Amino acid sequence: MERSLVGDLKSLPDGNSVVVKGWAQEIRSLKNLVFVVLRDSTGMVQATFKRDNFPDMDMLSNLSRESVINVEGKLNLKSKSKTGVEIEATGFTVLNVSESPLPLGIIDPVEADFETRLNNRFLDLRKPAKASIFRIKSSLIWGIREYLHRQNFVEVQTPKIVAAATEGGSDLFPVKYFEKEAYLNQSPQLYKEILISSGIDRVFEVGPAFRAEEHNTVRHLNEFTSVDIEMAFSDHNGAMTMLENSVKNGIESVLKASSKDLETLGLKIEIPKVPFPRISYEECRNIASANGVEIPFGEDLSVEALKFIGEKFHDFYFIVDWPSSLRPFYTMPNEKDPRYTNSYDLQYREKEITSGAQRVHNPDILKKRFIEKGLKAENFEFYIKAFKYGMPPHAGWGLGLERLLMILLDLPNIREGTLFPRDRTRIVP
Amino acid sequence: MERSLVGDLKSLPDGNSVVVKGWAQEIRSLKNLVFVVLRDSTGMVQATFKRDNFPDMDMLSNLSRESVINVEGKLNLKSKSKTGVEIEATGFTVLNVSESPLPLGIIDPVEADFETRLNNRFLDLRKPAKASIFRIKSSLIWGIREYLHRQNFVEVQTPKIVAAATEGGSDLFPVKYFEKEAYLNQSPQLYKEILISSGIDRVFEVGPAFRAEEHNTVRHLNEFTSVDIEMAFSDHNGAMTMLENSVKNGIESVLKASSKDLETLGLKIEIPKVPFPRISYEECRNIASANGVEIPFGEDLSVEALKFIGEKFHDFYFIVDWPSSLRPFYTMPNEKDPRYTNSYDLQYREKEITSGAQRVHNPDILKKRFIEKGLKAENFEFYIKAFKYGMPPHAGWGLGLERLLMILLDLPNIREGTLFPRDRTRIVP
Repeated sequence: MERSLVGDLKSLPDGNSVVVKGWAQEIRSLKNLVFVVLRDSTGMVQATFKRDNFPDMDMLSNLSRESVINVEGKLNLKSKSKTGVEIEATGFTVLNVSESPLPLGIIDPVEADFETRLNNRFLDLRKPAKASIFRIKSSLIWGIREYLHRQNFVEVQTPKIVAAATEGGSDLFPVKYFEKEAYLNQSPQLYKEILISSGIDRVFEVGPAFRAEEHNTVRHLNEFTSVDIEMAFSDHNGAMTMLENSVKNGIESVLKASSKDLETLGLKIEIPKVPFPRISYEECRNIASANGVEIPFGEDLSVEALKFIGEKFHDFYFIVDWPSSLRPFYTMPNEKDPRYTNSYDLQYREKEITSGAQRVHNPDILKKRFIEKGLKAENFEFYIKAFKYGMPPHAGWGLGLERLLMILLDLPNIREGTLFPRDRTRIVP
Repeated sequence: MERSLVGDLKSLPDGNSVVVKGWAQEIRSLKNLVFVVLRDSTGMVQATFKRDNFPDMDMLSNLSRESVINVEGKLNLKSKSKTGVEIEATGFTVLNVSESPLPLGIIDPVEADFETRLNNRFLDLRKPAKASIFRIKSSLIWGIREYLHRQNFVEVQTPKIVAAATEGGSDLFPVKYFEKEAYLNQSPQLYKEILISSGIDRVFEVGPAFRAEEHNTVRHLNEFTSVDIEMAFSDHNGAMTMLENSVKNGIESVLKASSKDLETLGLKIEIPKVPFPRISYEECRNIASANGVEIPFGEDLSVEALKFIGEKFHDFYFIVDWPSSLRPFYTMPNEKDPRYTNSYDLQYREKEITSGAQRVHNPDILKKRFIEKGLKAENFEFYIKAFKYGMPPHAGWGLGLERLLMILLDLPNIREGTLFPRDRTRIVP
């Protein structure tokens, strides 16, 4: 007989014969009965065993928690058990016995510390509220990808082993690549721009990116999932439209496919209205100033300043027209006033989600910007070359998937949305 | 006015005002006229400029090939130009001037050597037949992902920086991870199995995988795109069903979204019929033997043997029940005859696409297999632990996306289906 998922039992006819497979979360032995709460990825069901019907009942009643079992029986939808549905068992098989004690309890009311949880991630994720985060993450990236696919973006794969630092700086992990020294890529930025020069027009990539940042914070990972787009013949306004719609479609996908998981987490998420408001950097400085926080021109908006701005423009909004000093070398200066750039940050309340911009497409301006930023142009020859032979105007963004997830689900630590986080001290599991 | 894509012009009304943007592939100057063949990602169109209407016509007629331009004009669908459609130009803007000569010709009838092409990949990809490969690749992975999504697989991201070798052996790239020695992951195998123990039930990942193989061949990459699934409470038969349907859905997606690209490549691809035939390893030995090729038990099927098998079972088929000696430590031995395993290879004619299996889920058998294969169990403690506390039976596969693409499009070299290949000597661009 084919396996039924626990979550589907309620929609089957009462009295049906069923087979369920999962983990024995609880086993209670009474004189004549044994109750097992079986958990699978979709929910929990109580299975009731009459001792008289099973000569090998001791095997089950003595089974350790979290062992994997197969239960056959008759569906009872009128059950008063706490799982709402019950199976009157007619047979069982033990598929794998768990050792005990467990290094991490699944149903303990007190949560273990985060290090213990991460060391035993496979047990931590058996708690429905932890697994829900990752089903939501999957729905989120599906929705983003589906939107980009519909907008005729070509999904690409660019190399993670590279010879030069994308963003300059020293936050690089060195790789021994045969006889050569190489690095793990910090961002697909340079490669997606090269692809714009190839005429593919619209590209996106979802892949790992690596930053050797030495400090541990709750908002940073040393390995994260970067969602990147780049589009030819467009500017920051075109890229912002793609970004707000990608986020919107991602959230719609979560609501559609993962409503049960949101419920498990006790969260309500609303579909944001597009377009998101656009507020200029100067406007933000003014709001801050009106609240007694002075931001000198060319300096980043402080946490304090963003608090006031976030109060005024809640939920999603863009901060646009950032000063040149705050943006990377490939950002397009504003044509009217080059102290500013054609750039934006996507914000959620006081929190920055991601940033993007129109890019420089003129190779001479690009070289000048390299020098201004103190970078060695000769390390980027393979990149600058793509600008010399017909690079169209272009724009794009890079979005940290875990950052977006953290903000949407209000997670206290970005690692909660990362299956196996990598940080200053952690490479196992 | 909004930009039109060249490929869409034919469906617009004759005489319409249009704007197109792209590369000046050819510029021909006559006494009274200048013809420009403009190319974008969707096709080519001829734009005709009457000299009398443009005081700055010399700027255009002297423009270097592959410069990026914007052309406005009136659509002429009755044109006899070789592009089929013509624009009677009323205006133009030069968006970026190309240097000349080009390091690689776009329309040269003689193809440059592959090294030159890869060094100038951004120009190489301007040739429609080269870019088509990557649009097809995007459609292919979309179709595979869409099928898995529909089958309730959760898309996951597992770490690429790891502390232990997945497959054992020495084909690892070392990474300096702060004070620690780490490696680039060869495969998400161990992580997706750990996730099966977490109860997520069905997981898949599309991401880079790294193999420090020292030999250069036309079938291997040192960095490739691995498509991996793992499913709980299933065996090799269940995993094969997912694999054949993923491939079928991928091909259907290519036919639907990239038929023009297949045309550009001069290829016809048929939707394969599922289920694919299953042929046992022993049956393959017999076929080889009948053709005079003897394969001793426990040895791999030779190229010669696979030729005869591929002739008999053309297109897609599975070779199943491989001997234990030929499979990795995590492969499930056959319950009836442990000399064999519950494993399979997916083949296309004489070529191997990928392999998969039911996995060992019993921690004791797993440890025994570690020892048999000469691996140090202590390096895999984080992995074995996930088997001790309730690991369900499970199965899966890992598919090299570039290998599948190479076989589908009959590419002479796997690098043709890789934007920026990494091999023994190449890390730039």
